[in-house]
Amino acid sequence: MGRNLARKLIEEHLVRGEPEPGAAVELRVDQTLTQDATGTLVMQELEALGLDRARTEVSVQYVDHNLLQSDEKNAEDHLFLQSACRRFGLWFSKAGNGVSHPTHMQRFGVPGKTLAGSDSHTCAAGSLGMLAIGVGGLEVATAIAGQPLRLRMPEIWGVRLTGELPPWTSAKDVILEMLRRHGVRGGLNRIVEYHGPGVATLSAMDRHVIANMGAELGATTTVFPADDAVREFLRAEDREDDFRELRADPAAGYDVTDHIELSTVEPLVARPSSPGDVVPVREAAGTPVNQVVIGSSANPGLRDFAIAAAVLRGKQADHEVSLDINPSSRQIFADLTKMGATAELIAAGARIHQAGCLGCIGMGQAPAAGRNSLRTFPRNFPGRSGTPDDSVWLCSPETAAASALTGVITDPRDLGDAPPVLDLPEKAMVNTRMLVPPLPPEEAAREDLVRGPNISTLPDFPPLPDRVEAPVLLKLGDDVSTDEISPAGARALPYRSNVPKLAEFTFTRLDEDYPARAREVADTGHIVVGGENYGQGSSREHAAITPRYLGLRAVVAKSFARIHWQNLANFGVLALEFTEPGDYERIEPGDVLVLDDLPGALHADHPEVTVRNQSKDERYRLRHRLSAEQVDAVLAGGLIPRLARSGTTRGW
Amino acid sequence: MGRNLARKLIEEHLVRGEPEPGAAVELRVDQTLTQDATGTLVMQELEALGLDRARTEVSVQYVDHNLLQSDEKNAEDHLFLQSACRRFGLWFSKAGNGVSHPTHMQRFGVPGKTLAGSDSHTCAAGSLGMLAIGVGGLEVATAIAGQPLRLRMPEIWGVRLTGELPPWTSAKDVILEMLRRHGVRGGLNRIVEYHGPGVATLSAMDRHVIANMGAELGATTTVFPADDAVREFLRAEDREDDFRELRADPAAGYDVTDHIELSTVEPLVARPSSPGDVVPVREAAGTPVNQVVIGSSANPGLRDFAIAAAVLRGKQADHEVSLDINPSSRQIFADLTKMGATAELIAAGARIHQAGCLGCIGMGQAPAAGRNSLRTFPRNFPGRSGTPDDSVWLCSPETAAASALTGVITDPRDLGDAPPVLDLPEKAMVNTRMLVPPLPPEEAAREDLVRGPNISTLPDFPPLPDRVEAPVLLKLGDDVSTDEISPAGARALPYRSNVPKLAEFTFTRLDEDYPARAREVADTGHIVVGGENYGQGSSREHAAITPRYLGLRAVVAKSFARIHWQNLANFGVLALEFTEPGDYERIEPGDVLVLDDLPGALHADHPEVTVRNQSKDERYRLRHRLSAEQVDAVLAGGLIPRLARSGTTRGW
Repeated sequence: MGRNLARKLIEEHLVRGEPEPGAAVELRVDQTLTQDATGTLVMQELEALGLDRARTEVSVQYVDHNLLQSDEKNAEDHLFLQSACRRFGLWFSKAGNGVSHPTHMQRFGVPGKTLAGSDSHTCAAGSLGMLAIGVGGLEVATAIAGQPLRLRMPEIWGVRLTGELPPWTSAKDVILEMLRRHGVRGGLNRIVEYHGPGVATLSAMDRHVIANMGAELGATTTVFPADDAVREFLRAEDREDDFRELRADPAAGYDVTDHIELSTVEPLVARPSSPGDVVPVREAAGTPVNQVVIGSSANPGLRDFAIAAAVLRGKQADHEVSLDINPSSRQIFADLTKMGATAELIAAGARIHQAGCLGCIGMGQAPAAGRNSLRTFPRNFPGRSGTPDDSVWLCSPETAAASALTGVITDPRDLGDAPPVLDLPEKAMVNTRMLVPPLPPEEAAREDLVRGPNISTLPDFPPLPDRVEAPVLLKLGDDVSTDEISPAGARALPYRSNVPKLAEFTFTRLDEDYPARAREVADTGHIVVGGENYGQGSSREHAAITPRYLGLRAVVAKSFARIHWQNLANFGVLALEFTEPGDYERIEPGDVLVLDDLPGALHADHPEVTVRNQSKDERYRLRHRLSAEQVDAVLAGGLIPRLARSGTTRGW
Repeated sequence: MGRNLARKLIEEHLVRGEPEPGAAVELRVDQTLTQDATGTLVMQELEALGLDRARTEVSVQYVDHNLLQSDEKNAEDHLFLQSACRRFGLWFSKAGNGVSHPTHMQRFGVPGKTLAGSDSHTCAAGSLGMLAIGVGGLEVATAIAGQPLRLRMPEIWGVRLTGELPPWTSAKDVILEMLRRHGVRGGLNRIVEYHGPGVATLSAMDRHVIANMGAELGATTTVFPADDAVREFLRAEDREDDFRELRADPAAGYDVTDHIELSTVEPLVARPSSPGDVVPVREAAGTPVNQVVIGSSANPGLRDFAIAAAVLRGKQADHEVSLDINPSSRQIFADLTKMGATAELIAAGARIHQAGCLGCIGMGQAPAAGRNSLRTFPRNFPGRSGTPDDSVWLCSPETAAASALTGVITDPRDLGDAPPVLDLPEKAMVNTRMLVPPLPPEEAAREDLVRGPNISTLPDFPPLPDRVEAPVLLKLGDDVSTDEISPAGARALPYRSNVPKLAEFTFTRLDEDYPARAREVADTGHIVVGGENYGQGSSREHAAITPRYLGLRAVVAKSFARIHWQNLANFGVLALEFTEPGDYERIEPGDVLVLDDLPGALHADHPEVTVRNQSKDERYRLRHRLSAEQVDAVLAGGLIPRLARSGTTRGW
């Protein structure tokens, strides 16, 4: 049986382990990507690790999240990040240069390379035949320092594409179809690999759309072959030399399989407030819309904006609709402007925003409460838009533009227009001058970090006690997202570099009093109980650090989202799973749980520990999935204290 | 002696009074303008007044200030405003259509008409030969209801322009020259009228720049003749029929005179943190710049952005500079894009923001603390940028673009380049589809106000007691701005429709504890002591309402800025001036002042009252400038209670 592409990429980068599902493997990291919302912590971690200079082939720090600058904090973060890039030998992509994912794809992506990024949508680079994995910031920091990436080998999920998309549908409908079939947990512990003859009908940027929102399936990453479409993409970017053909072997095997006949795909929409709640647009047609937003890394391509402009050409957004356009990168915005589409969008009533993530991460364009907002974004978790009682729907640019015209959710096929034919340029307007290159080592060594008053250093976390006896402060349901644990948005995000301040926002979307109650039991610490897929969504390690700062010792859940699970281990929080899911029902908020002899229990041959519910005098068996190294890290209070104690951090 | 143009405009609209300096006059109002930051209160006032339908020729509600939408409040305000326009028969300019001043000039401005606007830069429309006055929101509300505008007749200040501006200077340098000569109080109680042969060398939009920042001189308004340049402007806007020639008589007389020979004007810059602290750019040359922002109603024209694009053409903003572009209106942005300049700006590294006020009012692009930000904006009051310790400089687009290139403050003449030659279109891309017209009366009557949870109704204010015995809670210096009294910016502005909440920000830039201390003495109320030009800057009536809400009874100052003085009277706060300026020195914070028999004292023939400093056993003579009607309003607790009591408000 031939090898699939994901396996080839993994074997090519394997440092240690056997690439069998569930086995621990270590992979060499060629490139890293950080954005500003997670990057300030990564730079503080590089500082704490004592790094002298990046050891990757390419490491790029993007500024794309915190662009609104309502006060001085964001501008000061940008200065800090730029200084850290000078100091550690990283590329710096200035504010306004664009969203990390499309920009990285355009300027740095290379087929066959590995990419670790402190952003959950890092997987978008799978569009070029890269193995691109979103991880916690600390793993990016150690990758920058030359350490391999550790993960449990996922299953490889082969999705065969046949046929061709019909008019008025596009790549977004393909990934929405995957989410319709499999939901937000369908990809957990899996790499999605698309193959088959249908792949050739999708451009590299179409594949970016599908790979990007693989994160919403919960997948470890997504891989597409590097074929002629990728060659064409790199040629348009003046980088054809970076092309390398990469495909699965003929008749390659997969651990799991699925099939999509593209000609049967129809316009789809994710209803509020989950990317997994997908229905045909026609089922929701007629719902009034108050806002339409086009952009984000989920629909970043020139094509995505150009098709919207073509649908809107010579017409006007409905009077009741705010039509917002988030260009995804400076280069795409330049191309869009050159081809005349920006002018068409302005004429149609669009508000054009600076290139960046913006509304996707709740930075601006928050809708009115209870009013429907239709977006081409990847996520619609509750409140992520910045509005507590939001009602956000996710769809393709075609559906978004059609609905902007009518003021109600509209299947674009029902406009009665002929499908637009796009005349896209063959070459991109390549302009790299907002990318500041790394300094030569001798100059870099003389640079100091520029630290504004809002930029703290990382808090010191003490070791985990041998015995934890602590109350359950929160009992939560399934699919709790990192947006709910540590909210983004314009109020909280400016404090992303300031853990003590940011901690005040922890869990407040679910329970306003959590920070105060956590401080009341600071002596013993506390425990949180969760359901399935705890910690889904963004990669932000703040969701581990800020509750840890407030005394979180352990999370007991039915299952964990991959990146958040890793972040918990990195910052010394014990993540435990029920072996009997029914035990979840037995624990109540306020119950005191006791974990005894943790060093012994965690280092035992079997990965199980017993917890005693002191309030109910019951015992539950829990499972941890930590490697021996991770057990050491958790016991030490986190990976940084462990590395610091072992003396491995200096001289990196 | 011939009549000057300002006098002609006043006489043409005179309802009552003699147009002699200092006399009370009442003027018919043809048009009104409101923006969203002040407009939500105006709409609440229309509601409190019981208005059925606007009685002006044209009333337009713009949405230009609060566009960032970090949470649901701004979007809900926009819905409220749009519903109020439907209800009361106003035009509604959607978010993204642009800044009120250039948009109003392009679409509604008519030579010879009067315009009252709840924005201090309303005076910009003087560029078209209008008499355009920024006033408090309540005066706009009563004007919409058909009441005349009351004011003290200002002096007319004739400024004769001769010659022509040299290369690399522009209209901004003319108004900066006025500010260099006369400072931020030079125009108090004056109308500036530009005349002479040099006027013809300035386009209508150049005149907008000069008229707009007449507000920074403290002037009541600015007037330019309606001549061929105005005809040309209206022709480009497809409105030549609205043209009417208007000029001063030959040899017209003026109360005060000045002269600027344009050929002697050089590039100028206002230093932090006053528009009146103006020096030649060369005196500041070499100062490092971290941010350059181009836009706002002070440099709104196509020309202002196009010249920046031409200076930057084929080059790149310095790596250490964030270059931010705030297009001022959708139409100008469309024209800029069509002529290729938007593409040039993007290529030069610009961050292009949505059309609106944005950074000018501290909504976004806040600079890092202590880093220099160079802006084409009208104001640089401390903290207005959104950054408490900001360092904001004001200059022309030419100087801004040159400095973006070099990363240091740069006189554009010192770039060594030939002055750019602009090829501007003769016709504007007129597109009115983001302007929602008024509903017909029968439809309007059926409309309800759409009130989100953050939109309060106006608080009820009780009458002024006959005797005030209250402590001085704050003693302030000269030129305290309304930005310092009731801050704008992204934290406070979302609460502009919610007086109790917004009150928590009152004076906090100057004294964090003011709101708490005011509440401690809620029983007696309190008094604030100020220096010269108290309440300069923006027209926001929140600066009267929020301290009033917290118990402010009287402000005793050396002098008052015109609009704020009127706002204090409208909301029942007694504004008193020292007759002996030296008495200012005798009062200390904490002193208890006593005002006895206020109804008798204020209604006496002489406009003086005596205040007793109970703590020091001293007496000071103070002057009020209130008309008999205003005395009634202040005693009643404000204009709305007075009108309500007199029964004049129903059936309007």
